[in-house]
Amino acid sequence: MPLDYRFTPAFENPTGSAIRELFKYLAQPGMISFAGGYPAAAFFDQQGLQQAAAEAIGQTPLDCLQYGATEGLPALREQLAALMARRGAAVHVDDLIVTTGSQQGFDLLLKVLLAPGAQVLVERPTYPAALQALRLAGAQVLSAATDAEGLDTQALAEQLAGRPSGSIALLYCVPTFANPTGACLPLDRRLALLRLAVQHDFLIIEDDPYGALRFAGQDVPSLLALSEQVDGAQGRVIHLSSLSKVLAPGLRVGWMVAPAAIRQRCLVAKQTVDLCTSPWTQRIAANYLANGALERALPSLAAGYKEKCERMLAGLRPMAEYLEVSAPAGGMFIWGRCRNGLDAKALLPKAIAQNVLFVPGAAFYGEHPDPSSIRLSFAAPGLAEIDEGLTRLQRAVAAA
Amino acid sequence: MPLDYRFTPAFENPTGSAIRELFKYLAQPGMISFAGGYPAAAFFDQQGLQQAAAEAIGQTPLDCLQYGATEGLPALREQLAALMARRGAAVHVDDLIVTTGSQQGFDLLLKVLLAPGAQVLVERPTYPAALQALRLAGAQVLSAATDAEGLDTQALAEQLAGRPSGSIALLYCVPTFANPTGACLPLDRRLALLRLAVQHDFLIIEDDPYGALRFAGQDVPSLLALSEQVDGAQGRVIHLSSLSKVLAPGLRVGWMVAPAAIRQRCLVAKQTVDLCTSPWTQRIAANYLANGALERALPSLAAGYKEKCERMLAGLRPMAEYLEVSAPAGGMFIWGRCRNGLDAKALLPKAIAQNVLFVPGAAFYGEHPDPSSIRLSFAAPGLAEIDEGLTRLQRAVAAA
Repeated sequence: MPLDYRFTPAFENPTGSAIRELFKYLAQPGMISFAGGYPAAAFFDQQGLQQAAAEAIGQTPLDCLQYGATEGLPALREQLAALMARRGAAVHVDDLIVTTGSQQGFDLLLKVLLAPGAQVLVERPTYPAALQALRLAGAQVLSAATDAEGLDTQALAEQLAGRPSGSIALLYCVPTFANPTGACLPLDRRLALLRLAVQHDFLIIEDDPYGALRFAGQDVPSLLALSEQVDGAQGRVIHLSSLSKVLAPGLRVGWMVAPAAIRQRCLVAKQTVDLCTSPWTQRIAANYLANGALERALPSLAAGYKEKCERMLAGLRPMAEYLEVSAPAGGMFIWGRCRNGLDAKALLPKAIAQNVLFVPGAAFYGEHPDPSSIRLSFAAPGLAEIDEGLTRLQRAVAAA
Repeated sequence: MPLDYRFTPAFENPTGSAIRELFKYLAQPGMISFAGGYPAAAFFDQQGLQQAAAEAIGQTPLDCLQYGATEGLPALREQLAALMARRGAAVHVDDLIVTTGSQQGFDLLLKVLLAPGAQVLVERPTYPAALQALRLAGAQVLSAATDAEGLDTQALAEQLAGRPSGSIALLYCVPTFANPTGACLPLDRRLALLRLAVQHDFLIIEDDPYGALRFAGQDVPSLLALSEQVDGAQGRVIHLSSLSKVLAPGLRVGWMVAPAAIRQRCLVAKQTVDLCTSPWTQRIAANYLANGALERALPSLAAGYKEKCERMLAGLRPMAEYLEVSAPAGGMFIWGRCRNGLDAKALLPKAIAQNVLFVPGAAFYGEHPDPSSIRLSFAAPGLAEIDEGLTRLQRAVAAA
């Protein structure tokens, strides 16, 4: 007889990731996937990383093999602080800790900042693994409306009006090339969001894995950088980022910029979570960054994603009557909404029958999902795959 | 004015690791440390790991660089299942998931199994990072007595008598070459512990990072292996292990063997914690194990630690009147107790003045620390350092 285990309430009957549920279809022969958020394998700087790795184990074997400091390898923290400075945020080495992907940064923050039942605002729609982490941590998740430009700060102001100050603990957002919408929050809304954080006394977790993948328009400063300009906003923004989308997810190297009181507590939590991020992959990343290789690679990486994005937008145009889509200025995602009678619920099985995959939008909502929405990623497939996949999607649209 | 952040109760005023507090003394020029639990840098199989790493990125770059499955790289899971079989536990690939060090395995288990306020038994003394994780997770930590052979199961039976069945959620232990005592739990006590788990309906987390480092006596089967032989004990043991002590901590590769219901929930938790353990270091570890290099390296590794342990025991003999010490059959630690008027509290500053470091035993207790105890690790220092460090310790003992 199997044992009757006693689980914590959140884990009595947890649902896994809806996106991972789609993984089984990837094994279908010839499947073309627009579903994942994986970077393009063809864009990995394999040669540069191989060189950085050979240097790491050859020249600094003990850095690679022994336990490392919980806050991260000093050489990597220096490189990441310099990277943040190039991105417009004056960050000192001590302000920044290395995390095992930015996902770990979020998990640490929830341990430190999130009392069970605390209220957390997220974008509607938002990144599913953040939603899942919040639910499992017992947060009460509230959604803030977005439009094509991201968070609708005017609507947020109305949503917050009359609420007691401090009733919202955190706001989590991906302001630059959001997952799933691809939207980039304009400067005036960033400033408005920071003012709302001051007015209503909440912290902002700015998740920025895609910001360096801009391929159109002008850079907008991060919330972290802007927080220095808004009265009372200093110390309200915790910035998470990652090398996963710009270099390689296999490194599992992310970082967090946070005020000292928060950062130090995250380190105490990290000591019980994984002691330290792999010093070996940290050393590889540090070498790669020190070689200047990331800065050299970024322009062609962004150009590569631009080409894929444009190819996908062109291939979607014949379906425009039934599928309204976003045109992102960076990142990896196109967000679509079915219209004019296209049955979104029927679309996924028809697409799978045609051997093409996307993610139904419902996965990205904290509450009241919009069942007409879908997410398409142009990042992983090649150009010919994008063409062929969209031809198949068009057949699926016709059949749905 | 600094912001007044609101932290979760556990993180309002957390204390960091007492062992890490000692790290500052490591910077003292000429310091000899018996404090850390670090493996010997000289024992790293740098050449074998370098070869495995070159194969990994050279032959399977996408395995290294892309996201990997949350449960771990299939090739590594196969190698680890085979390793568990060599260690006497029939483990199928599917029974095992890769974790970011065994520390992550423990963190995942607490998320899944530990309701706030639940009662957890630990050995007295025990591993501090487990204690810390339990405290931060809101557990009520109870201590079970140990003696030179580890958990005193007779005393545990008396401690549990009369308590309602199911009142203890978990028992955490390091039964083989414990940290800090070095004790190895004998077979009869292992069986008695399993029977107690059945009788009182608790789960056992068996943490086994040191088991392969035996240098004296005969192997004793793991609690996991023995759970198959005790009626009702099947499915009650969750086994954690790691490559950190036998290969290299820098890999951050550990694993968990657990019943399906627990394992699947840990995977859901892991998706929100770090998505996957570094596929790159997993691929390196898989290649290293597939090359048979670990099995070839283990005998000389154990012999190396045996020599260090014997050297330290010999060097401690002149202090026997004041310092009673354990003689472990494996692992990395010697546990000592001050006696005959040696003031243990005065010993640490005297030792630091002599440029030698150990860990005061109080760090290892969940409650009522024994202030006369100390932990000495023979793993990291070389033989000459052990000699010199103990000469210094003898001067400190004389001065304390």
